[in-house]
Parts: sequence; C-alpha cells; structure tokens
Amino acid sequence: MAYRDEKLSEEKVFKDPVHRYVHVRERVIWDLIGTSEFQRLRRIKQLGTSYLTFHGAEHSRFNHSLGVYEIVRRIIENFNDRPNWDNEERLLCLCAALLHDLGHGPFSHSFEKVFKLDHEDFTQAILLGDTEVNHILRQVEKGFPKKVADVINKTYENKLVVSLISSQIDADRMDYLQRDAYFTGVSYGHFDMERILRVMRPMEDQVVVKESGMHAVEDYIMSRYQMYWQVYFHPVTRSAEVILSKILHRAKELYENGYAFKLKPIHFLSFFAGEPTLKEYLALDESVTLYYFQMWMEEDDPVLSDLCHRFVNRRLFKYIEFNPNSQMNEWMELYKLFQKAGLNPDYYLVVDSSSDLPYDFYRPGEEGERLPIHLLQPNQELKELSRLSDIVESISGKKRTDHKLYLPLDRLEEMSSRSKTKKRIMEILYG
Amino acid sequence: MAYRDEKLSEEKVFKDPVHRYVHVRERVIWDLIGTSEFQRLRRIKQLGTSYLTFHGAEHSRFNHSLGVYEIVRRIIENFNDRPNWDNEERLLCLCAALLHDLGHGPFSHSFEKVFKLDHEDFTQAILLGDTEVNHILRQVEKGFPKKVADVINKTYENKLVVSLISSQIDADRMDYLQRDAYFTGVSYGHFDMERILRVMRPMEDQVVVKESGMHAVEDYIMSRYQMYWQVYFHPVTRSAEVILSKILHRAKELYENGYAFKLKPIHFLSFFAGEPTLKEYLALDESVTLYYFQMWMEEDDPVLSDLCHRFVNRRLFKYIEFNPNSQMNEWMELYKLFQKAGLNPDYYLVVDSSSDLPYDFYRPGEEGERLPIHLLQPNQELKELSRLSDIVESISGKKRTDHKLYLPLDRLEEMSSRSKTKKRIMEILYG
Amino acid sequence: MAYRDEKLSEEKVFKDPVHRYVHVRERVIWDLIGTSEFQRLRRIKQLGTSYLTFHGAEHSRFNHSLGVYEIVRRIIENFNDRPNWDNEERLLCLCAALLHDLGHGPFSHSFEKVFKLDHEDFTQAILLGDTEVNHILRQVEKGFPKKVADVINKTYENKLVVSLISSQIDADRMDYLQRDAYFTGVSYGHFDMERILRVMRPMEDQVVVKESGMHAVEDYIMSRYQMYWQVYFHPVTRSAEVILSKILHRAKELYENGYAFKLKPIHFLSFFAGEPTLKEYLALDESVTLYYFQMWMEEDDPVLSDLCHRFVNRRLFKYIEFNPNSQMNEWMELYKLFQKAGLNPDYYLVVDSSSDLPYDFYRPGEEGERLPIHLLQPNQELKELSRLSDIVESISGKKRTDHKLYLPLDRLEEMSSRSKTKKRIMEILYG
Amino acid sequence: MAYRDEKLSEEKVFKDPVHRYVHVRERVIWDLIGTSEFQRLRRIKQLGTSYLTFHGAEHSRFNHSLGVYEIVRRIIENFNDRPNWDNEERLLCLCAALLHDLGHGPFSHSFEKVFKLDHEDFTQAILLGDTEVNHILRQVEKGFPKKVADVINKTYENKLVVSLISSQIDADRMDYLQRDAYFTGVSYGHFDMERILRVMRPMEDQVVVKESGMHAVEDYIMSRYQMYWQVYFHPVTRSAEVILSKILHRAKELYENGYAFKLKPIHFLSFFAGEPTLKEYLALDESVTLYYFQMWMEEDDPVLSDLCHRFVNRRLFKYIEFNPNSQMNEWMELYKLFQKAGLNPDYYLVVDSSSDLPYDFYRPGEEGERLPIHLLQPNQELKELSRLSDIVESISGKKRTDHKLYLPLDRLEEMSSRSKTKKRIMEILYG
Repeated sequence: MAYRDEKLSEEKVFKDPVHRYVHVRERVIWDLIGTSEFQRLRRIKQLGTSYLTFHGAEHSRFNHSLGVYEIVRRIIENFNDRPNWDNEERLLCLCAALLHDLGHGPFSHSFEKVFKLDHEDFTQAILLGDTEVNHILRQVEKGFPKKVADVINKTYENKLVVSLISSQIDADRMDYLQRDAYFTGVSYGHFDMERILRVMRPMEDQVVVKESGMHAVEDYIMSRYQMYWQVYFHPVTRSAEVILSKILHRAKELYENGYAFKLKPIHFLSFFAGEPTLKEYLALDESVTLYYFQMWMEEDDPVLSDLCHRFVNRRLFKYIEFNPNSQMNEWMELYKLFQKAGLNPDYYLVVDSSSDLPYDFYRPGEEGERLPIHLLQPNQELKELSRLSDIVESISGKKRTDHKLYLPLDRLEEMSSRSKTKKRIMEILYG
Repeated sequence: MAYRDEKLSEEKVFKDPVHRYVHVRERVIWDLIGTSEFQRLRRIKQLGTSYLTFHGAEHSRFNHSLGVYEIVRRIIENFNDRPNWDNEERLLCLCAALLHDLGHGPFSHSFEKVFKLDHEDFTQAILLGDTEVNHILRQVEKGFPKKVADVINKTYENKLVVSLISSQIDADRMDYLQRDAYFTGVSYGHFDMERILRVMRPMEDQVVVKESGMHAVEDYIMSRYQMYWQVYFHPVTRSAEVILSKILHRAKELYENGYAFKLKPIHFLSFFAGEPTLKEYLALDESVTLYYFQMWMEEDDPVLSDLCHRFVNRRLFKYIEFNPNSQMNEWMELYKLFQKAGLNPDYYLVVDSSSDLPYDFYRPGEEGERLPIHLLQPNQELKELSRLSDIVESISGKKRTDHKLYLPLDRLEEMSSRSKTKKRIMEILYG
Repeated sequence: MAYRDEKLSEEKVFKDPVHRYVHVRERVIWDLIGTSEFQRLRRIKQLGTSYLTFHGAEHSRFNHSLGVYEIVRRIIENFNDRPNWDNEERLLCLCAALLHDLGHGPFSHSFEKVFKLDHEDFTQAILLGDTEVNHILRQVEKGFPKKVADVINKTYENKLVVSLISSQIDADRMDYLQRDAYFTGVSYGHFDMERILRVMRPMEDQVVVKESGMHAVEDYIMSRYQMYWQVYFHPVTRSAEVILSKILHRAKELYENGYAFKLKPIHFLSFFAGEPTLKEYLALDESVTLYYFQMWMEEDDPVLSDLCHRFVNRRLFKYIEFNPNSQMNEWMELYKLFQKAGLNPDYYLVVDSSSDLPYDFYRPGEEGERLPIHLLQPNQELKELSRLSDIVESISGKKRTDHKLYLPLDRLEEMSSRSKTKKRIMEILYG
Repeated sequence: MAYRDEKLSEEKVFKDPVHRYVHVRERVIWDLIGTSEFQRLRRIKQLGTSYLTFHGAEHSRFNHSLGVYEIVRRIIENFNDRPNWDNEERLLCLCAALLHDLGHGPFSHSFEKVFKLDHEDFTQAILLGDTEVNHILRQVEKGFPKKVADVINKTYENKLVVSLISSQIDADRMDYLQRDAYFTGVSYGHFDMERILRVMRPMEDQVVVKESGMHAVEDYIMSRYQMYWQVYFHPVTRSAEVILSKILHRAKELYENGYAFKLKPIHFLSFFAGEPTLKEYLALDESVTLYYFQMWMEEDDPVLSDLCHRFVNRRLFKYIEFNPNSQMNEWMELYKLFQKAGLNPDYYLVVDSSSDLPYDFYRPGEEGERLPIHLLQPNQELKELSRLSDIVESISGKKRTDHKLYLPLDRLEEMSSRSKTKKRIMEILYG
C-alpha cells in the first residue's frame, strides 16, 4: 500500500482536555507527530509569557497543534460527500493543520521583533529543508512538502483548503480560543464549536457558514474579543514582554559592544547577527533561553543582570496609563529624570502600545489578512457576517489603542524619600 | 500593625482553572509568593515526565502549591468558631500549605533515586536557611520558620494542624487529584470537594469527616485509585522515567570515569558528588536540566547521546509484561543477548516495578505514613473509614505489583532480519 | 430569641446544579420554603412552553427562586462591612429574592395576555393576603410582609435593596440566564458570576460594578442577548405559545357562547370572568391546566379539541416570515382562503411578532423599566455601561421586530392536490 | 424508496444537555418521536418523586429515551464494519432504544406495586396494539413491531442486539446515570463514556469491552453504586414514595368500601379494579395524577386528604433507622400507641426496606437479570469483570438492606406534651 494511504493497525488517541480525544488513523500523521521538529513544540509555550499572569497558561504549542489537527479532521468528516469537497485534499489539510505552527520559536513575539525574524519563514524552511518532517512528507509524494507549505503560506491554489487553516474562522483560532481559555481558567472562550462545525459548508474557494448558525458565530467572535482584552493583551503579560524584549536588546547591544560575557552566548550569536540557520533556530527553545537568562543573572552588566532577575523571579515593571503622543513633555522630562536617577531610560522607561482590531484584528505574533466570514443564506447567496450581525458590526475594524508606560516602581521606591528627582517622577506619574 | 497581621489594601486573586479563584489577603502570603524560591516552582513540572504521555500535563508545582494553599484557606474558613480550632494557627497553616513542596527539584522521582537526595530535606533547608522565604517568615516571628518546617515535617505538636497538610485526606491530595485530572483531561479525579470541606471537623489531634459525608470520601478515594493506575503509574510515563534515570546514571558514570564532556556539566558536579549545596540544588531546575540534555545529544558517548535523543525527542522504550522473579532465566539470557547485540543491557534492558497501596498507598516521590481517615459518627465516636466502607476496604492495603521490561524495540528492529541474536530476543519477548 | 434572628441548628443545603449548593441558615427562610404557596412553584415551569423546543427545559420556578435567593445571599456576604450597606436589610433582601416570582401562574405569558391578569399583582396578594407566606412574614415583624412586597414592587425606599432584586444586572437575571442555559443545554448563558459578585459595590441608591469588571459584565449582557434570540424567542416555542393562547381564547369564547362542556371547566370559570380570587388563582397550576387540555381533546368543538390535541401531542403550527404591515393584501387574501377552506382563520392563521430590546430589553412575561448598569470608575465616578462599552452600546435600545405567520401546514397538506384554494394558499406562502 | 430506508432531507438535531446533540437522520425515528405515545413520556418524570429531594430532578422520560437512542446510535457508528456486526439490525436497535421505556406510567414504582401492574407489559402492548407507534413500525415491515418488542423483552434471537439495550452496561444505564447526575447536580455519575464506546466490541451474542478499558468500566460501576446510594435510594425520596403509595392504597380502599368521592375518580376506576385497558393506562399521566391529588385534598376522608396535602405541599414523613425483624416488640407497641393516638398505623407508621445489589443490582422499577460485563482480553478470551477488578468484586452481589421507619413527626409534636402516649412513642423512637 502506498505510504500516503497507510492506516495504523489500530486507531491511536491522545487524551485532550479540550477536544476530549484527538484521533489519529493515518501513518503519515503519526510519523509527523514523532519527528524531532514537532516534538520540539513541547518546549515552546503556546502563550509565551502569559503564564506569569495566568499561572495555568503553561501549555505548549504541541498541545495546540494537535488540537488544530483534530478540528480539521472533524470538519472534513462533515464535508465528506458534500459538493465542492474533494477528499483527495484530506491528507494535505491534516498535515497543514498539524504543522502550521512548526516555525514558532520561544516567546515568538519578542524574539521576532528584536531579531527581525518571522516564524512563518521558518515554518517554510522546516517543511522544505533537510528535516525529519520534510523526509516524511516527501514519502507521500515528491511535491507534497511544497503543497503543505503553500497551504500554510495561503498561496495554495485551492482556496477552500487554505481557508480551513487560515481565515477568520479557521481551525487555528477555534482551537486556541478554547484551549487558552481552558488553561488560563477564564470563563470566556466558550462557544458551540460542534454547532459551527455542523453548519460549515465547503464552497468553491472558501468555507462558509449557514446563516442559521450566525448566533454561534457571533458567540465565537465575542469570545475572541474577550480573550484579546482579558488574556492576550493583559497589561501584566505585556510587562513581562517588555522585560523580555529589553533583555534581548541588552544582550545584543552588549555583544555588539564587545562585552565579555562570563558565559559565551553561543546559542544567540547567529540571532545577534540576524541570520540564524535553520539548525541554530531550532536549537534555541524555551529551556535553552531560560538557561541563559539564569546564567545572565550572574553577569556583571547591571542592566542585563537586573532584567534577567526580574524575568526569572517575576519582579515585573509596574504600569500606568500614558499616551506618549499627548504627553510628550512629561515623557521627555521623565526620560531625563530617569537618567539623573541612574536608571537607563532606554531599558527602564518603556511605552507599550497595544492595538486591537476586533473581528478582523489579528493575534500578537501573527500577521497578514484573513478572509472574512461569509454566511450562506437560504437563497444560497453569501453575505459577509458583519452585514448581518449588529454585534459583529459594532466591533469590526475599530482600532482601539491602549498605551501604557512600564517602569520599575520598586527602584523608585528604594530611593531616598528626600530625593527631589524621585518626588518629581512620582508627581508626574501619579499626580 | 505587626507584619503577621498586615492585610493587603485590596484582596488579590489568581485565576485558577481548578478552584476558580485563589484568594490572598495576607501580606505574608503575598510576599512569600513573590520570593525567588517560590517562583522557581514555575520551572518544575507537577507531574514530571507525564507530559510525554498526557500532553496537557505541563502544569507546574507553582500551580499546585497555590491550590493547596487555597484549599487550606477554605477549610479554615469553615473551621472558624468551631470547638478545637485555634485561629492563632491560621497563618501557620496557610504558610505550610503554600510552601510544602518548596524543596522539589526537576523530575524529583528520578533525581532523588539516582543522586540519593530527598526533596523534603531541601524543603527544610529552604525554610530554615538563608533564603528569601526564611527572611519573610522570620519577620512574622523569630521561631516561625521552624514552626512551618515542623508542620511540613509532621513533627509540629498540634497534630490537627499537621493533618490539614498531610494525612490521607489532606489539602495536598485533594488539590493534586483535581488538578492533575484537569490538566491531563482524564475523567477521573472528580469528587465533591465542596461537600467534603463542609463535613470536615477539627478534633483535638486531627481533622475528621462527618459520617454523612462518607460517600463523598469514597468517591475521593476512588479518584485516587483511578488516578494512580490511569495517570501516575502509566507505563509510558514510566518509560520516560526509565530513560531519564539512565541518562543521569550514565552522566554520573562517565564523570566518575573521567570522561571529557564537551560541555562541562558544572550544574551537575555537586549532584554527582552527592552533596549539592542549597544554592546548587536550587539552580538546577527543569530548563537547566533540559539544556544539558540537549547539549549531551552532541556528546561522543553513544549511550549518553542516544538516551538524551530519546528523552528530548520522545523516542521512548517499549515495554512488555515481565516478572524478573519468575522469569529469571529469560532475564539472564536476554542480558547476554543484548551484550552480544552491542546494546549495553545496563542501559537498554530495564525492569521497572510499580507498586500501589490503594487507600494507604502513597504517591511516587512521597514517603512516610499518613494518618488514616476517621469518620465522626452521630454518636460522636470515631471510626476508621475502611471499617465502614466496603469499597475502601476492598482496596485497602492491598499491594499490587506490576513489573514491566523496558527496551529500545526500534534498535532491535533495525538489526538484520537474519540475525540469530535478534530472532532469539524477539522469541523470548513476544513468544 | 426573636423569630427573625433564629438560626437552624445545622445549616441546610440544597444540591443545586447551577450554584452547586444553596445554603440556608435562617429559620424564616426555611419556613418560607416549606409553605404551600412556595411549593406550588414546583408545578409551574420556569420556561413555560420552551420544553417543547428544548427538551431539557423542564425545570420549575421553584428551582429558579432558590437560585435567586442564593445569589443574593452571596452578594450580601460580600457586602458585609462595606460602606453604604446596612446589614439590617439582609433578611428583607433574602425574603424578597426567594419570593419575587411567587405570583407566577402556569404558562404565565399566554394566561396573562388572554385573561388580562398580572402575576405581579398576585405576588403582592400572596404576600399581603391570608396565606402561609404572609403568616410567616408577619412573625418577623408586623410590617414585614409590606416591606417584602414593596421591594418586589420596586417601591421600597431603600433603592439599593430594590436594585439587588430588580435592575439590569440583578440576581433574578443572573440566575435565570445560567439556569436556563444549563437545563436547555445551550452553550450561551455562561459568564463569570463569581467575578461580577466580587466587583459589585453597594452605593447609596443602587448596586454598581467596578469598572475593572466591565468585560465580565459585557459577557453577561451578551449571554442575555444570545439567550433571548436562541432560547426565549425561539420560533418553535412561539408556535406552542400561539396554540396555547388560542386554546384559552377558544375555551373562553365557547363558555361565553353557552357551549355545553362535557367536563365543566370549574377551575377556569373565574378566569373566563376575568376575576379569579387568590385561592382560585393558586389552584390552577400546570398539572390542572394539562388535565383540562387532555379532557378537552374529547370535546365536540372541533377547534378546541384540535388545538388541545396539538398542544398535548406537540403537533405545532409551522411558520414563515411574514410582515402583516407590508403584506396586508396577502394577509387579507389568506384570511378569506382559510375561511373558504374551512379553517377558522382566527385560530389557524396567526401572526406573532416578537420584539427585543437588547440590554434594556425585558423578558417575556416581565415588564417595567429597570435601572441601567453603572460602572464605578477608579476616580469614584459612575458611568453608565453603554457609554464605556462599544459592544453594549451596539445592542442598546435597538428594537428589532420579527414577524412570523403561524399555521397548520398539515391541514393544508391533507387537502386535495386539486384544490384551487390550497394551491393559491401555498403560492402566497411559499411563492 | 422503502419507508425503512427513508432519510430526512436534512439531519435533525435535538439540543441535549448530556450528549450535546441528539442526531436523527431516519424518517422512521423522526415519526416515532412525533407519536402521541412517545410525546406522553414528557408527562412522566424520569425519577418519579426524586424532585422532592433534588429540586433539579424534574426531567422526563422523554429526555432519557432520546438519550438512550443517541448512545445506541453512537455505539453502532463504531460497530460499522466490525466482525459480528450486521448493519441490517441498525434500525431495529435504534427503535428499541428509543421505545424501551414507552410503557412507563406516572411514578411507576408505587403505581406498579399498589395496582399490581408492570410497565413492561404496557410497553409490549403499545408496540403491538392499535397505536400510532405500532402503525409506524408496521410500515417498516409487517413483523417489525414484534421484533422491537422482542428486543425490549430480551427474547430476540440476536442476543448482541438485546445486550445493547439491556445488559449490565447498556445504553439505558449509561444514559440515566449521566442524565440523573446532571439534573440532580450531584458530582457522581461521571465516567468516560466516550472511551467505553470506543472499546466496546460486538461479539456473537453480546457486547463486550476490551480489557484496556477496564478502569473506565470500573468508574462506571462506581458511578452506579454512588448514584444508587446518594440519589435513587435517598431516604427523603423514599418518604415521598411511602406517602404516594399510601394515597393510592387509601383511595382504592375507600372506593372498595363505597366511599362517596366528591370528585368521582374516573381515571382511577380501572386501576382500582386492577385491569386498566391500554387507553386508560395511557390517559393517566402525572398531570392527571396530580390533578386528582389536589382535588382529593378537599375530600372528607381525613387520611386521604391529609396524605394528599403532604404529597402536594411536601410535608413528608420523618424517618429513623428501624429494623422490624429485630425490633418486633417495639413495632407492636408502636402500632398500638399510634392507634391510641388516633393515627391509623396502616397509613402513618410505615417500614420501608431498600436493598441494593451493587454491580448486579437493579434499579427501582426495573427487574430481571441482566447479562454480566465481559472483558475481552488481548488473547481474545473473555473474562467476567468482577474476576479482574478488585473494586467491582468488592461490591458485587453483596446485598445490603436498609430499614427505615417513616412517620408524621409533626402530628406527634402537635400532641399535648403531657400525653403519656406521646411520651412513650418518643421514648421508643428516640430513646
């Protein structure tokens, strides 16, 4: 039997807290899960630094990837025998679902920003390079790795297939909303996925949802909205991200300035240079990162050491509302006051702005535009969701920006109560 | 106001998926949570290698410790104003609950076995040594660290207090059963804790449960029984433990034999010597451990390198039922055949025996005897649970041992199909 | 000890699927639950005819009333010691919560419309009349029944107390959303009540919510929105309501026309006359109503008999979208065609219009305006919710009317396929 | 297309709180659900009088019947293509599952005992008599009603089919345990049904379970054990049953003695005579029963009136432990004392004995022996569950009888405190 058609002698199941069970019947899927590149996702947290805000959020991208696979598997089970659906695409969909996050590194958001990398490029590189994953995909068919890469890259010709993996209501989002809600323990993130799956219909170039399922979709959009504001953009998480970014910046800066590290940061060198090879990229997972952070706590550079201490032991920066645009003067004065107080403002006075684009907003660490959601009306016409739903319309496309100023309040508090610098800083900050 | 009585200006809550919210009002508790020793528990998984079997089981001991604290807090809330209860002990109970697992290291079970350590000794050392935790406890009262240590050590004079933290139905167990069930996603582990808490009564020297709550307690005991067999003793988890132990053994052996490591295992040296200081012990968390395992994959020693590859990439050993006592001859023959096949049997042919002691059994990594559960009858007499419950009686004290033989089946399969050694091995193993 | 202060010797608990446990400590509450007027609520379904759409919705108003009591109990537990809160009002709040729905009759919505009754009048009458409930309340204090009645009537002077029982975010609504979601099994209706309760603050004349809890409140409003459209206004439920109303109409009409009932409708006589006494009102619960419907299936009047058959055996009318305002001509033609076909259009051709007022909408069977939700900002100012929340703003005050035409499609289908009347009817209906 | 093969144009789903959705594709099933005999199950509570103990337990047999159908549907979906499974039996299984409880009347347990009836006879009668259900089944095939009746009656030749509907681990039990737990809100009743379904295997003459699923089955058995003791045999529920039985006894006795009822009990006459026709049987549902109870509250006979008051308004008897065998003298003395006190002991002094047969026990209202559970071992041999499971063995076949004496404590308390009769009664009862 051709490898692509091989079935396991007995179906394998993974116990999954979100979907109850993840079912695997195909040999190809089983083999992909066993690759070192896929297993590596166990060492990358799904929500990066969020575990410092929500202690339950310690789950990995491995979890999520299995979940996305399972949702796509169920969608396709429902599609079987429907018009527009070509079951020849089934294995391709399953592989793309499973592997779509393969290129994520540790704390992607900050790493990518500081080192100017893009996890999507690495996903492509893993799929197409000399990897265990590529080796397995090639056994299916010579051009198969490219096909999987194209689906994930949204350039695959069959747009219906693409929309299963990335659209405004794809398996990726449906999994992470539910999974992140489950592990953080928040009460948002619930919607009736079983119903959505039942009313999904394959069309020529996209998956659509029967209009009768509109309320379930609204519920899903609202979950998203709530998860963004309550979890993904939580100001404490952003504080941890701020510190993380500053650690990476500082290490890079020190390296570029010829600072003599006690522990040579061999895993980071290519990152500092901006050009990690695939192998180097894969070697730097979260345990390696945390190892360095712990070693760097012992470095002589006070900024690097302090920031690492803060991250490892969760001594985060405090925040206040602060709009750098309208508060330019305060900003400049604070900058100078911090310098005066011996707190390098480039590292200790940080403005962070979050923005959300409800409905068509995208998740930190993700980019690109996604297909809107189309509802299939009884008369077989399609209509874009926000044209039928008041609620969705109300949150569509509205950009809301939230600026916060992050700083080490503990350091200010330690200063003498007679210090005028301190007094002035506190005055500006807290009025 | 005395430090021990200080309240936070506003109650703090942690969102917890198991208990919904963890509530903190005391400054002391808040400060303890912020110590580096307590934050370190975020880098120690609650279930060690179980995440390789149940992908959801990635939660840390930090999680669990907060949970135990919260349960004790709720128990005490119910105890208020009851006879036998002295509310002066409240803060002590909360601290002991929060800190009871403080001495756990990475993958405790294997580390302790191989390096002959005991996490309870380190819990004591952290509480009584020069640590942030000790510093805070001392502010409460000079002898307070010792009191907390005594409660955790079960030597504190007020046995009622001890029994809240460690007995057959203590807050520790009630938390981990529910928490481990939640994160693994298994359907065991549920019992009506709210009801148990409501029928708990403080007695002079122990916590007891009103007889009317017996069925809820039975349910709790059954949860424990199921969790042990379905989760804690899962043979795949034990396979990962086998490999982990063998890695540690091998590294130690190599070190003792003067092997030249490419990366000097500085974090491990004191462990190899069997005498890590407290500081050294605390420095070796799971991210550091995993860092070494990944570096060791590149070592020249084929055994160390292979075992690390197996652990990191989850290429576990397979297992078959095997009783070394009754199958001594097969065992000896296999040993020789493995040597012949170039597979060092000390590392590649491992018998692992699990035993359980339902009801009075104890959890891997824990030791000591625990107080049995007493039911308070309407006539105010106490009776031991198993004397009233058929179900509990049926599983009490019965030792069931389960022997398994672990080995790298993949290596055997790679051998030439004409190899007589292979043939004979397979014959012995699979008949 | 004064009756109002009497505690039960041991706290009583009710196992409740929604709130886990309902706790009762006061003798007054316990006695009220035991009255025949309160027990009668077991024979009135919480959601009237909804069980014909959602088979799980068979729960009674007894359930819900206990739930509202429990929520108020928890709110007050949090209020203890807060400014603006006078604990002297506690028992009053608990009684009002428990008894607020006491005057509901069977299938309130239709009964009240047809017989021009108001369940709120009957609640007042039960509280103030010669009833077991009144007898108990009077033991608390002579004027206590009036106080309870005033709270429920929203005329009590302490508006804070009133707002606990009836406002846009009162205990009533928080209970029924969760309870109705639980019993129907829909995935809407979830919100983080524990959080809302924790951020509720008593103010001089109302309960407000701290701004930090805004997202939890948004979630609650969205639950409401979804429950209205998915459950409360479900078109199949409305079909059952249509039939129910028409049964009551027909029975009344027959009675007024001197029709000789085989079974004299003694329980209904005072309702037909429009003036049931309290005793008569209380005697007519759902089992009595269903008894009559079953007996009336055997009546000679074909309309009454048919409608009762339909209700009892769930042979509901079908519906199509139909706007009587813009389709006046069709409506008139249909009316005549139905007459021609021998189907009395007054009973067999029914337009039903639902309207919703999201956020300030009210529930079928309830009336009156409710206090809006105010958020308490960090600067201690109050702001109305919709001014801070885009989502709530988007669904506030918008009236959406949905018209449907209900008719017995089965009867049309039975007509000869050559009937021109039938053909024309079908043409108008389905184009 | 043959009626038996007709599919609905679109799958219909019922929202079910226990199984999320119940799916119907077959026209036959849809039509059966619409029959008046099946709809009548909405007017019969699944747990009889349990709602007087657990207020959530107001769900009907209609609910449960849909649930059993859904479980069988899922089992068969898994059986497809397995050896031993003949898909020709599918529709038969679905119909038998749906209809297995069709003959239940109101409060079956007491009605059957007092009037010497058997709901199973009525199930057969409905299936085979002149009913809407029979009419539909006959359209499938002339002999089909008989086949369905045989499956339910356990006399169908294909024992595999029988075992799906009635065995120790059939769809009936799996549904009611979960459903009754859900509606009462107790934390028992959970087990991993999805897993059990996945390891079920069809054998020649029964359904068996793969040994690897043993722990899930143990969990199911334990759920059963807990549900029996915590819910089904709850002493308060038994108090309500005692009163119910006594009402029926009294009404019968009065009738036989020529008592002149104010309201002639026409619905009960044939029951008193012991020979209700099918039509009469079906007419007497719970609403009719409750109607009579409410009317009888106004009867002149003080016993009937009092008992009906007690049932309707939940003024239940109190209970104490009492073993009539070992306490014969007390019993006889109490009997006389009650007579002396003017309390007819035949109605007001009632011993009720419950017995359970854990594992092979059966549910109140059900009878007959059921096939034990067989585990399928890896070597393809079958072994009875209790031979492999200590826990199940421990509760197997052990009969535990629990005797309670029920009496109206309120009536005793009303007696003068100087009454010697009262004093002596209280002495015997409470020592």
